[in-house]
Amino acid sequence: MSAFQGLCQHYKQLSHFQHLGAICGWDQAAMMPSGGNAARAEAMAELALHIHKLATAPQLGEQFAAAEQEPLTSSQQAQLREMQQSWQQATVIPDDLVQAKSLAGSKCEHAWRTQRAENDWQGFEQNWAEVVNLSQQEAQIRAQATGTTPYDAMLNLYEPGTNSASLDVLFSDVKTWLPDLINQVLHKQSGESCIMPSGTFAVAQQKALGLDVMKLLQFDFNHGRLDESMHPFCGGVASDVRITTRYDEAEFVQSLMGIVHETGHARYEQGLPKALAGMPSGQARSMGIHESQSLFFEMQVGRSEGFISHLSGLAKNHFSGANSELLSQQNLQRLYTRVQKDFIRVDADELTYPAHVILRYEIERDLINGNIKHTDVPELWDQKMQTYLGLSTKDNYRNGCMQDIHWTDGAFGYFPSYTLGAMYAAQFMAAMQQSVDVNDAVASGDLTPIFNWLAEHIWSKGSLLTTDELVQQATGETLNAKFFKQHLQSRYL
Amino acid sequence: MSAFQGLCQHYKQLSHFQHLGAICGWDQAAMMPSGGNAARAEAMAELALHIHKLATAPQLGEQFAAAEQEPLTSSQQAQLREMQQSWQQATVIPDDLVQAKSLAGSKCEHAWRTQRAENDWQGFEQNWAEVVNLSQQEAQIRAQATGTTPYDAMLNLYEPGTNSASLDVLFSDVKTWLPDLINQVLHKQSGESCIMPSGTFAVAQQKALGLDVMKLLQFDFNHGRLDESMHPFCGGVASDVRITTRYDEAEFVQSLMGIVHETGHARYEQGLPKALAGMPSGQARSMGIHESQSLFFEMQVGRSEGFISHLSGLAKNHFSGANSELLSQQNLQRLYTRVQKDFIRVDADELTYPAHVILRYEIERDLINGNIKHTDVPELWDQKMQTYLGLSTKDNYRNGCMQDIHWTDGAFGYFPSYTLGAMYAAQFMAAMQQSVDVNDAVASGDLTPIFNWLAEHIWSKGSLLTTDELVQQATGETLNAKFFKQHLQSRYL
Repeated sequence: MSAFQGLCQHYKQLSHFQHLGAICGWDQAAMMPSGGNAARAEAMAELALHIHKLATAPQLGEQFAAAEQEPLTSSQQAQLREMQQSWQQATVIPDDLVQAKSLAGSKCEHAWRTQRAENDWQGFEQNWAEVVNLSQQEAQIRAQATGTTPYDAMLNLYEPGTNSASLDVLFSDVKTWLPDLINQVLHKQSGESCIMPSGTFAVAQQKALGLDVMKLLQFDFNHGRLDESMHPFCGGVASDVRITTRYDEAEFVQSLMGIVHETGHARYEQGLPKALAGMPSGQARSMGIHESQSLFFEMQVGRSEGFISHLSGLAKNHFSGANSELLSQQNLQRLYTRVQKDFIRVDADELTYPAHVILRYEIERDLINGNIKHTDVPELWDQKMQTYLGLSTKDNYRNGCMQDIHWTDGAFGYFPSYTLGAMYAAQFMAAMQQSVDVNDAVASGDLTPIFNWLAEHIWSKGSLLTTDELVQQATGETLNAKFFKQHLQSRYL
Repeated sequence: MSAFQGLCQHYKQLSHFQHLGAICGWDQAAMMPSGGNAARAEAMAELALHIHKLATAPQLGEQFAAAEQEPLTSSQQAQLREMQQSWQQATVIPDDLVQAKSLAGSKCEHAWRTQRAENDWQGFEQNWAEVVNLSQQEAQIRAQATGTTPYDAMLNLYEPGTNSASLDVLFSDVKTWLPDLINQVLHKQSGESCIMPSGTFAVAQQKALGLDVMKLLQFDFNHGRLDESMHPFCGGVASDVRITTRYDEAEFVQSLMGIVHETGHARYEQGLPKALAGMPSGQARSMGIHESQSLFFEMQVGRSEGFISHLSGLAKNHFSGANSELLSQQNLQRLYTRVQKDFIRVDADELTYPAHVILRYEIERDLINGNIKHTDVPELWDQKMQTYLGLSTKDNYRNGCMQDIHWTDGAFGYFPSYTLGAMYAAQFMAAMQQSVDVNDAVASGDLTPIFNWLAEHIWSKGSLLTTDELVQQATGETLNAKFFKQHLQSRYL
């Protein structure tokens, strides 16, 4: 067996344990009763430690050196590059820190599920202090090893190849035109009226509607499922993708589009190269590219007139007793493109969303770089919300800094992916339109040409290319904000 | 750290991986779409291999020797005994055989889910050949190590301390009176009429009824759930017990009592000693004792007049449109104690059930001891069914030898536990009645005194006692068939 083959076998083994963790993690969020958490957290911490041991196995260094001397195809070279990168990121963190962060994160996240509802910042803060402390330790170790700032080192876990300097360029661009655009759109929309959902939309019917929409989006139900959790996510493994939503019987609008969003993540996973299943090069390219797929589904396709026309028809089938004007294409279009300065990121519209992300980016960057304390966060949140969106979150933790799951288990550096994803999605759509009649495909109800383009240019590539190479090959240029700006202007003005 | 403490830490670690396997195994049966199976089977095989490595870690032999020299309490001595026994059982099997059996078993079980419905013996037999072959290899290795027959070695995995010789004594006793008793009861019941369920019993209502019955039986929903799977089982972990059922909208009777049965298993798990969680001595004593708890719930309590009166009331609440005579106490009592010679073990009544078990016991004993081939099984099944119950299963594999999940993944030696469990349950009930007014507790709807007795004498003991000690301390004598016979005569004649 060559050194390269030995490495592949090792990473395949590692992927089997990641598989078990992905399913048990999904279960923890979607199925597990509360009393099961203590034992589950211990088991998950043990697994995280074991995965970390495999990812940092001492023989890997020599095997990488030997594999570099072997004749490899370009695909194998990409495989080696991804394995080495994941090895470098894993080896710098000591075992006890990995286990401590996993335990503290599980504990904090689990308690947060009830604490958020109770607006209990005091309780949350006590658990979160340790999560922040351990995340800062992690970031400092990573920064020393790679010669970056602590925050940039965390950023690279989710978005390899980017850094605060380039985010500052992209986000500064957005800041030059976004506030004006939001105000212009608010002015334009002030004369439009929407019918808001009223009455009851039973969970069973919402779920049936969601499943119909997933079929329209060609979700493969032989390799995945739809369930419920407090915070919607896409989990599981590529051969068995688990997406979740949460239902509110007072309305169906949020959950329905949430399902469209998660289906975008899911189809990326389902479309990854099967021959590389379990291999680092067979995985999704980055969190930003992952989000580009969910936002391509949710924003580029999902909020198009043609798609909302389908949603309108399906919603009328499932909510036969509801106001038909509420469910009309025009009204749903207005509901789904209504711009509003509001508190909650996951409920935010396409236009104000970047403001939510930039706020989080600035806070987590300063927190992880050690420039602020975790107890400063509520006040900073309040200040920035007032500056960017004119809203105060004073004493309103549940709708302020306690609203997201990400920070509860230390996923600092993740938030920028959302706005990067929106930018990638707009750039992909512009490129796709050069060869695909997107409006026609959506109108016909057979979206296959759209999915074929995504499968060819994004999904099937896994991590064989770097992010810059992927975007360059798919769109002819690297990421910039102009397509995003054009998209927003064209849709909202 | 003492050698004993080191051992406890090691087995705690092992239990964390068993936790992940239990949850992913539940998921595989209750949640996973079919297309997820190939990757899951690989991940589960990897986990089985890892668990086997931990269970056979080379340093354990020395640690056991050192721990034997340390001053231990009697509880610690029981702990050491259980750890040593599980180590001995694990060490004799080579790693590659463990992995091969897990893979072959997963493959066979998964295909069986569709093959059974299609009566596809040819397809099943091709996968099953390898499962039988690997199980025979395993049994031979175990037999050589313990100086028993191959089948007795397998039997000891599920029912430590028993063997074919003692089963033959118990089952011979049963054979002397069971056929006559069945015929007497059939004659007696021939004059009684039952109203059979007709119409539709929606799954949602059946599930709501099942949940109500689980509440009556004091199932702890903070530490468990109810779901659906093709073959009902009790899985998960003690802190999070997952029970399943399968619904048939044409009737509710089977599923309802199935839930009572699985709730018995679940409460045993939920009642195991929390201080010993994850330790070998904190686990359920044996499969026979486990089954004694499910059958105590299903047969001893569940089919009593008082309990069926509750079922009748609850069923009337949930099926308000159904025939009230169908749901009357008297009619449900007749349905639940109706004796019939039929094909399916899981649907069999209390009286004919032992015949189904004895048939399987005789076949698997001869198969594992190498006296018959796996291709002989359908014909032997047909012959024995004709002898014991007067029914032919010729060409009817789905209702013959393909009806059970157990053999599909090589769980040979398990079946006798069912009838041992029925005998233990009858013996426990006789002992309990000496201090608890069981009928009064059931009639009142507060079954706490019954559960307190079980918790004190069975659940809280875990594996601290041997099976014989447990039964002796709880009932004053070791297992014999007389209480089972008295129970059946008293209920059915």
